[in-house]
Amino acid sequence: MKLIVDAMGGDHAPEEIVIGAALGKENCPGLQILFTGKESEIREILDANRISSQGIEIEPSETQVEMEDDPLCILKSKKDSSMARGFQLLRDGAGDAFLSAGSTGALLVGASSRIYKNKIPGVKRCAIGSVLPFQKPCLLLDSGANIEVTSEELCQFALMGKAYAEDILGVKNARIGLVNNGAEETKGTPLYVETHQALKAMAGIRFVGNVEAREIPFGACDVLVCDGFSGNLILKLAEGMGKFFSATLKEMLLSDLKSKLGALFLKKKVLAFRENFSYEKYGGAPLLGTRKPVIKAHGSSKRSAIASAVVQAERFSRADLGEKIESWIGKEQE
Amino acid sequence: MKLIVDAMGGDHAPEEIVIGAALGKENCPGLQILFTGKESEIREILDANRISSQGIEIEPSETQVEMEDDPLCILKSKKDSSMARGFQLLRDGAGDAFLSAGSTGALLVGASSRIYKNKIPGVKRCAIGSVLPFQKPCLLLDSGANIEVTSEELCQFALMGKAYAEDILGVKNARIGLVNNGAEETKGTPLYVETHQALKAMAGIRFVGNVEAREIPFGACDVLVCDGFSGNLILKLAEGMGKFFSATLKEMLLSDLKSKLGALFLKKKVLAFRENFSYEKYGGAPLLGTRKPVIKAHGSSKRSAIASAVVQAERFSRADLGEKIESWIGKEQE
Repeated sequence: MKLIVDAMGGDHAPEEIVIGAALGKENCPGLQILFTGKESEIREILDANRISSQGIEIEPSETQVEMEDDPLCILKSKKDSSMARGFQLLRDGAGDAFLSAGSTGALLVGASSRIYKNKIPGVKRCAIGSVLPFQKPCLLLDSGANIEVTSEELCQFALMGKAYAEDILGVKNARIGLVNNGAEETKGTPLYVETHQALKAMAGIRFVGNVEAREIPFGACDVLVCDGFSGNLILKLAEGMGKFFSATLKEMLLSDLKSKLGALFLKKKVLAFRENFSYEKYGGAPLLGTRKPVIKAHGSSKRSAIASAVVQAERFSRADLGEKIESWIGKEQE
Repeated sequence: MKLIVDAMGGDHAPEEIVIGAALGKENCPGLQILFTGKESEIREILDANRISSQGIEIEPSETQVEMEDDPLCILKSKKDSSMARGFQLLRDGAGDAFLSAGSTGALLVGASSRIYKNKIPGVKRCAIGSVLPFQKPCLLLDSGANIEVTSEELCQFALMGKAYAEDILGVKNARIGLVNNGAEETKGTPLYVETHQALKAMAGIRFVGNVEAREIPFGACDVLVCDGFSGNLILKLAEGMGKFFSATLKEMLLSDLKSKLGALFLKKKVLAFRENFSYEKYGGAPLLGTRKPVIKAHGSSKRSAIASAVVQAERFSRADLGEKIESWIGKEQE
């Protein structure tokens, strides 16, 4: 299996990306890495860190998509960027999956574009899935890509989310929930009222109804469906609150001598607490709706997050979700 | 000053409401309470708890709005309920402010209705403001009442929120933020793009731009404007995550002997941590856009939360926000 890695995307590119990918590779026997990006820089990092080049190739590319670029640039003005090269290699069969920590918008355009031929026929829009690290992992989609959606698209997200939760996260008969401001069927905007009925009518899924936001941390469902505006709010607020609580806890533990003494007894537990609530352990966010896996790593990813994302990409690629999603969506449209 | 209290609304009515209101009254010299509800039950609670009836009156009402009732019932079939009576007394000058822990929907209908003549002329819709207990208090509005809104309504929410934040929460020159999925002006749905421009163009406010959800806990603004669907997500997720972290922390501190030892040193701090992140200290949620204050206490409120809400209602009533909001909104419409 060969994973294409955009070496130039993300806040800590290329160094943390290259080292992280090499670390991830060590945990996946037989995995090969194909970097896209500035060849000389990548080689320098490999050499400086004494990383063997066995199983590692480089496809040279001198430009890259910047955060302020129009996402459409990867189809036009930046067709030779490290990200666009990744999609071309994927399309041409030079790799089995693609990982990037670069611009989410551009990655979504690339994943959905006819030019790169990776979107599954019948899928209206690709969605970004993010695993919320609560009591039980919960796959949130769309988590920020599609700000305005239709009921049909939300129903497709439910199917794509089910496939990922079951085959990659190991959930059995995934429970699908719809984000909403109340449990009753009549709650929410007209879009949400319509979607509730549509999900209820779908034969192939286990729909558990509307999920209020306060229930999300307590394992109310395995797949949480919503529009990208709401999904972004949920994902980012959960992230912000995690940081807020960690900071408050730290302050509390170091505030005076008595607390510091107490903290000594709790050191391991506190570390476990923080680690447990970390987005890193689930690697990157899958772009669902593609034939071959495309994974978005967080822009701020350092080596360990990239290594997790590589391991996840390898598992994702083995599972061959594309075919399953294509057949499910085909059945719905019959 | 006389506060009307719906004794029959909320999960723990009437007992916790009556005792809580009496507790709150003790902290507000000169405050009188006018309960609406079942007279015999209220008298029994006062007697059983040896609460002096000085400064306490009761307006008898034999029915009440139930959670499953259509909110419009308080204008029609339940015109003689404890909540409807409260609005009538407010309209007729028998009280200065109204507090209820009953149905939010019905309370909003009552506050907005022409029958009870409490909505400020020019205000399109009343909004529910909720104080998020983060690093700095942040007033979120609308926090769940108005699922679909217009840009003009969101701009009015900004003005109403500014008045409350400055006069009740004691913030100087309140910073107004707009919930969004990115900092750039072009982010969000068309409604949010339009609202960003409208807020930017408003002369009387200090607009700090879009606020991403991850910044909310860190004091990004004093007033956070959004539609009620998003507001509900933010409020409820913050509440759920608070509970989740508290539960996780407790589990951690009691997991083994070593941790229990550490916890002994930290007991006070942990209690302070939990208290600091409590919605109770800010009392109820104001319904903004009314002439005389209407305050919604959480349905699950027990006596201490009701007591806080009474103190807040007293301060709210003194501030005479209605007049200020009316003049600000009038100016915007000129």
